[in-house]
Amino acid sequence: VVNQSGPGRHPWVMYGRYTQELGVYAKEEAARLRDGGGLRRSTSVRSRSAELLEYEKDPCAKCHVCTSRCQKFLISRVGEDWIFLILLGLVMALVSWVMDYAIAFCQQAQKWMYGGLNSNMLLQYLAWVTYPVVLITFSAGFTQILAPQAVGSGIPEMKTILRGVVLKEYLTFKTFVAKVIGLTCALGSGMPLGKEGPFVHVASLCAALLSKFMAALFGGIYMNELRNTEMLSAACAVGVGCCFAAPIGGVLFSIEVTSTFFAVRNYWRGFFAATFSAFIFRVLAVWNQDEETITALFKTRFRLDFPFDLQELPAFAILGIACGFGGALFVYLNRLIVECMRKQKTINKFLLRKRLVFPAMVTLIISTLTFPPGFGQFMAGQLTQHESLVALLDNRTWSRQGVAEEFDYISHSHAWKHPQVNVFITLIFFIVMKFWMSAVATTMPVPCGAFMPVFLIGAAFGRLVGETMAVMFPDGIHADGSVYPIVPGGYAVVGAAALSGAVTHTVSTAVIVFELTGQISHILPVMIAVILANAVAQSLQPSLYDSIIRIKKLPYLPELGMGHHEKYNIRVEDIMVRDVRYITLSSSYRDVQEVLLIGQLKTLALVESTDSMILLGSIERSQLQSLLSLQLGPSRRLDHLRRHAKDNDTHTLDTHTHLSNLGNMDNPLSPPCTHTHSTSTSARHGVRFVVSVAEVSRTHARVMRVLNPLPQIAEWEEQQLDEPVDFNNCKIDPAPFQLVERTSLHKTHTIFSLLGLDHAYVTSTGRLVGVVSLRELRKAIEGSVTVTGVKVRPPLASFRDSGNNTTNVSEVTELHKLWNRHRGLSLPRDPTPVKNICEAHCN
Amino acid sequence: VVNQSGPGRHPWVMYGRYTQELGVYAKEEAARLRDGGGLRRSTSVRSRSAELLEYEKDPCAKCHVCTSRCQKFLISRVGEDWIFLILLGLVMALVSWVMDYAIAFCQQAQKWMYGGLNSNMLLQYLAWVTYPVVLITFSAGFTQILAPQAVGSGIPEMKTILRGVVLKEYLTFKTFVAKVIGLTCALGSGMPLGKEGPFVHVASLCAALLSKFMAALFGGIYMNELRNTEMLSAACAVGVGCCFAAPIGGVLFSIEVTSTFFAVRNYWRGFFAATFSAFIFRVLAVWNQDEETITALFKTRFRLDFPFDLQELPAFAILGIACGFGGALFVYLNRLIVECMRKQKTINKFLLRKRLVFPAMVTLIISTLTFPPGFGQFMAGQLTQHESLVALLDNRTWSRQGVAEEFDYISHSHAWKHPQVNVFITLIFFIVMKFWMSAVATTMPVPCGAFMPVFLIGAAFGRLVGETMAVMFPDGIHADGSVYPIVPGGYAVVGAAALSGAVTHTVSTAVIVFELTGQISHILPVMIAVILANAVAQSLQPSLYDSIIRIKKLPYLPELGMGHHEKYNIRVEDIMVRDVRYITLSSSYRDVQEVLLIGQLKTLALVESTDSMILLGSIERSQLQSLLSLQLGPSRRLDHLRRHAKDNDTHTLDTHTHLSNLGNMDNPLSPPCTHTHSTSTSARHGVRFVVSVAEVSRTHARVMRVLNPLPQIAEWEEQQLDEPVDFNNCKIDPAPFQLVERTSLHKTHTIFSLLGLDHAYVTSTGRLVGVVSLRELRKAIEGSVTVTGVKVRPPLASFRDSGNNTTNVSEVTELHKLWNRHRGLSLPRDPTPVKNICEAHCN
Repeated sequence: VVNQSGPGRHPWVMYGRYTQELGVYAKEEAARLRDGGGLRRSTSVRSRSAELLEYEKDPCAKCHVCTSRCQKFLISRVGEDWIFLILLGLVMALVSWVMDYAIAFCQQAQKWMYGGLNSNMLLQYLAWVTYPVVLITFSAGFTQILAPQAVGSGIPEMKTILRGVVLKEYLTFKTFVAKVIGLTCALGSGMPLGKEGPFVHVASLCAALLSKFMAALFGGIYMNELRNTEMLSAACAVGVGCCFAAPIGGVLFSIEVTSTFFAVRNYWRGFFAATFSAFIFRVLAVWNQDEETITALFKTRFRLDFPFDLQELPAFAILGIACGFGGALFVYLNRLIVECMRKQKTINKFLLRKRLVFPAMVTLIISTLTFPPGFGQFMAGQLTQHESLVALLDNRTWSRQGVAEEFDYISHSHAWKHPQVNVFITLIFFIVMKFWMSAVATTMPVPCGAFMPVFLIGAAFGRLVGETMAVMFPDGIHADGSVYPIVPGGYAVVGAAALSGAVTHTVSTAVIVFELTGQISHILPVMIAVILANAVAQSLQPSLYDSIIRIKKLPYLPELGMGHHEKYNIRVEDIMVRDVRYITLSSSYRDVQEVLLIGQLKTLALVESTDSMILLGSIERSQLQSLLSLQLGPSRRLDHLRRHAKDNDTHTLDTHTHLSNLGNMDNPLSPPCTHTHSTSTSARHGVRFVVSVAEVSRTHARVMRVLNPLPQIAEWEEQQLDEPVDFNNCKIDPAPFQLVERTSLHKTHTIFSLLGLDHAYVTSTGRLVGVVSLRELRKAIEGSVTVTGVKVRPPLASFRDSGNNTTNVSEVTELHKLWNRHRGLSLPRDPTPVKNICEAHCN
Repeated sequence: VVNQSGPGRHPWVMYGRYTQELGVYAKEEAARLRDGGGLRRSTSVRSRSAELLEYEKDPCAKCHVCTSRCQKFLISRVGEDWIFLILLGLVMALVSWVMDYAIAFCQQAQKWMYGGLNSNMLLQYLAWVTYPVVLITFSAGFTQILAPQAVGSGIPEMKTILRGVVLKEYLTFKTFVAKVIGLTCALGSGMPLGKEGPFVHVASLCAALLSKFMAALFGGIYMNELRNTEMLSAACAVGVGCCFAAPIGGVLFSIEVTSTFFAVRNYWRGFFAATFSAFIFRVLAVWNQDEETITALFKTRFRLDFPFDLQELPAFAILGIACGFGGALFVYLNRLIVECMRKQKTINKFLLRKRLVFPAMVTLIISTLTFPPGFGQFMAGQLTQHESLVALLDNRTWSRQGVAEEFDYISHSHAWKHPQVNVFITLIFFIVMKFWMSAVATTMPVPCGAFMPVFLIGAAFGRLVGETMAVMFPDGIHADGSVYPIVPGGYAVVGAAALSGAVTHTVSTAVIVFELTGQISHILPVMIAVILANAVAQSLQPSLYDSIIRIKKLPYLPELGMGHHEKYNIRVEDIMVRDVRYITLSSSYRDVQEVLLIGQLKTLALVESTDSMILLGSIERSQLQSLLSLQLGPSRRLDHLRRHAKDNDTHTLDTHTHLSNLGNMDNPLSPPCTHTHSTSTSARHGVRFVVSVAEVSRTHARVMRVLNPLPQIAEWEEQQLDEPVDFNNCKIDPAPFQLVERTSLHKTHTIFSLLGLDHAYVTSTGRLVGVVSLRELRKAIEGSVTVTGVKVRPPLASFRDSGNNTTNVSEVTELHKLWNRHRGLSLPRDPTPVKNICEAHCN
């Protein structure tokens, strides 16, 4: 059901490699894109391994092309920003408006079919049910075929991407098309699905595509990743902004939902783009004669002079707390459904084979239950989400004045006011049914969000509380002369903001609700309810988006919640991996080979010597691989063979045959990742022969051993491997991020979030003692103790070190050792020399 | 006029020393506070130098006391947060309400005096003028005497404090009292001054004091600096929130005005505290029967169904752009006045001597001009700011319907509608006069802000544009059947938001305006105008607060504005100081002494050796000073003398006399800071005799030389100085922040802002090559070329490196050198040994 994600597939971090200049980045990224494109285009022509070889020969060779262009566009940067944001806003407003139009048309068509067949109940039912089933099935199928990444909300993925992880397939044109069309169909079906979450994704897609388009037109600057991240966060604001015509709420919501640390200097981008987008979105409605002027989407008409009484505030507070519990329950229910279907193997297998059955089934059940002549009559089943919301925000009191008759839409009052059943029963049915329906519907593999359904349920719940209050206090609570009756619509507004705030763990739903209704008179009740709902929900469950991140196992750093007090007492030394892979300045190629065969980390530490362990920098895995392949590469191999042939004329024919072989064949690469350590050891003792070529394209192997039956080549290889590494052609990150052992988990989390780090080395006065990666940090925060090689601090750790100062002492001892060692070095040399580093490392 | 600031006096950085654990911080801070207190208390009993000596003996000795308490309170952290925020909100709401009450009373008293004397014009004038002059003079005098730090807005200082700089005197109880009373008097005088800025400061003061109070009651956690910073930023939100009853706007405004990077996880704190505070603030008004229920402060009653026509938007846009220019002009004018008075030496001298003359003069001029029977009749001089704003936000059209008569306050319509003069003339006079009056008044040395006056001018300007529009289109612009006349009050709202946004460079004034008026119907015009005003103002001038920061020379990192494109092309290597002060592991005490005598930096780099220059960590200056004083301290000196006396019995009497002298006297310290390098060199050759004791308490000297006429002591000192330093008792920061030479200025700025750094070392594969401090960064951003020892990159730097990749090459060369050197070390030793580091350093 849940689409596959790319956890850690290509973790590109924004500040992680802060040591490289911005322009260099742009160049590299450009080169990577081009190379990537080049690879894809030529796959059919040449063999994969040959390409890989070519690709890894000099990844920087093609970088220098666009530097001057980069420079030019870095200068004209800000001007481009405005244009870009205007374009983005314009496109998104158009998309949003057209989509709304299409959705309204779809829903109208369903109404019309249903209304036209009112002679025959069965036909009516078939029409009512078939229509959404067809639309949802189409949406699911279309998305599945075109781009499975388009499924779901998109906010969790955007959160991950803005954290610095590259999920490239999430920002392609295919995904854009799949998302827009899939979303239109899904929403047109009338299921309880939302537009907001997917719209954040659509806006980001739009920004990414616009960036690419502009890059193709103007080059340079539009390939800058840092800038793209800024633009993506603006795009998220645009997504919410033009979905609800709520620019301020959109900006705040997108910040709360996607960011951990927000750069205030990027604030204006979001506001500018979201305002422009919301403006165009509403102007289109005016031009289309839908509206007379620009107003709010769900305009309310509450009294201004006395919006609510002071004594109603406890009711609002209780509403907020209840919404908090409701929000947590919704998140829990949603996760439960997904996990349940995953665990049930039979269901799971069946669903995996027939991917369209599940959405079709869910749609069938939901639309059967909402069939107006059936159960739907007790839960206003015939209304669309938009109509329901308009009705719920009505400023009349239903229980006393009856449901307002003068709505623009036909037959709304009938929907809520059943002849036999009380309006309270209808509301309770509506809330309960919609609650589980929304939780189930949002797990369908179609592009859909949960914000709007939750918002609607919250509004219904608020209306229920408000109507109850109106019945309890028919003349209002106010004791003085004038009578101010209670406004249940105000409760609906408060409930909507509180429940959606609880589910998403945001406070800015308050602002969204003001912008949606066009009235800010209920600001204090809304704020109180939203804050209380957040407090309750945050202490019970993660937010819906964090929950989805966990379900999809996206590479994300969880938040330090409010309950994590012990995080101040866990230190880096408790979670770090002490067995760091490193190479020294005097490492031989054999050491490099071994390190590459064992570890999995993307970067390797470079230390001065095994003895001093002073951290000098870090080298990317690929750099080492290319070093190794240079050393053992075919050109040097040929040189050696030629020299060997000259020296020793007996093997002339043999060698020449081999040489010509070497020239023609597509340098087969051995897949070292499949080697275990033992085979590698045996390989060192001469068993180095044919390796399968078939797996090459899958394993991305870089360590090469040319198919070679000659014993002198094996000998030559041994020699080559024993040579010390020449780091001259190697790109080294000269200042990787360093922590110390005593850094608290809280501080480590802050630094990782702030700088978007992927890993950090732990040093003690210059000496490398460990490494912490995102994985360890995540495990430590989530409290798992089952990490291999990672010791999680015992729960009693918080009582350690209280009263004494052991760490300080140990640090001093460390320094003392270092100092003494250094003394030993700089004073007249003692008889024990510095050991051969290579030996020390091999032992 | 401008009070003294403490630039860099004690730059404590939040993340700068991120290598220390949180608890350790708390301990240190606590110890520091106690030691400080202890010093102050005992000053009268013992001599200053003796204390200094004791203080520096072991600064950590008293730290261990509160560790266990720390631990306990770190655990109960979050619970305390809620209580703290509620208390803060409650106190601030009470302060705000009482202050408003007092201000209203003051203004009423003036009205009453003025009204009661209407028989005699001269007496009336005297009453009108004397009253504000007395109040302002009292305010200025009171503030001057009690706490000069209370002068001005306080937002610039808060921005600096939240950046991590400690300006301790800004957060004391004295300042609190001075600010509250001074502000009440200043606002009560009716001058065009604001409450917002000072209120941010008052709230921060309140939070700081509350922290201290809680720390005294409960200890531990309330001494945690990190937590205090979080609380201070929440307090800023409370300040704005309870000043305007605008919780959301308050939070956003405080974020925009004080933060560079904002941690979203602290968001709820601000919202919670500001909402609670605004709620209590408005509830107090209800309880006091001022209001019937909780509503906005400046409630408007604009039409909901058709707030504005689409075709009015160009007018709103023009209004926004004009406000942008106006805002920039205001900031420029304000700075011009301050600088003008500073430069004019005669004025300056006079003002410095008679500090109260300037505010009295300004008040006299302003109140004379607003005297209602005089010029004041053309500019609604008799109205208070509150009354003017209520009138300007009126929903009637003055030019056609006349000024509304039904206001609660008496004689408002008379104020605006002069019998002979057009309402347009009145408005123009009002705008022009208030503009320069506000700019002048905010330079007075009283606690005052500029937000409210600017807001008022903006409203007046908006009203002027709106009235003009109403005259131009008497039946509205709308072409269809229904007539919707133009609402000039809407223009006033837009103008107010735009002008205040332009002056403060914020977008959130839009939200504040919605919350102030209780209507959100004009959201799109307001947003458009605010964004345009910001765009214009930001490209012309810094924000008012940044301008004040520059005027006061506060230690702050300027923002990278929108126009700073070349920042991508300046690199750290262009701005770093290459001549870094460092000590090596094998340094002698003499080296330490020299380094301490020359440099001024707070921390010194510790490198492995002068040869390798591998950065191991950094040591605080004070640590080195205490190392040195330990080595040459009186106890060791006594030991030496005793031993010397035993060895050599001839000098018995003499030495013993001296010993008793040593025991009795208050170890006089030499003031090494006053030494030049040459005297220090001469001192090394034996000339080390009496040094003045008088300067000791001023210079905080740590390097001690006991008054000593015996030659053997001089000899002993020479020996001691030549000994290598024992780092065992020295606290070392084992991982100071590192940058590389190629890091761009843009990225450096981001990192410094993100982590609140004070300085960072520049390394090249582990080797220390330079240091960048806030000062260099600031200079580089501000484009000054006159820094000593700092080479600012030439303007053509942007064209360097385009097309080739020289830096990469140079880096490879560096590594090559390091590698070769290392090879040389680990291979059989060559005849040239590692030089005596001390020698190398001394040469």
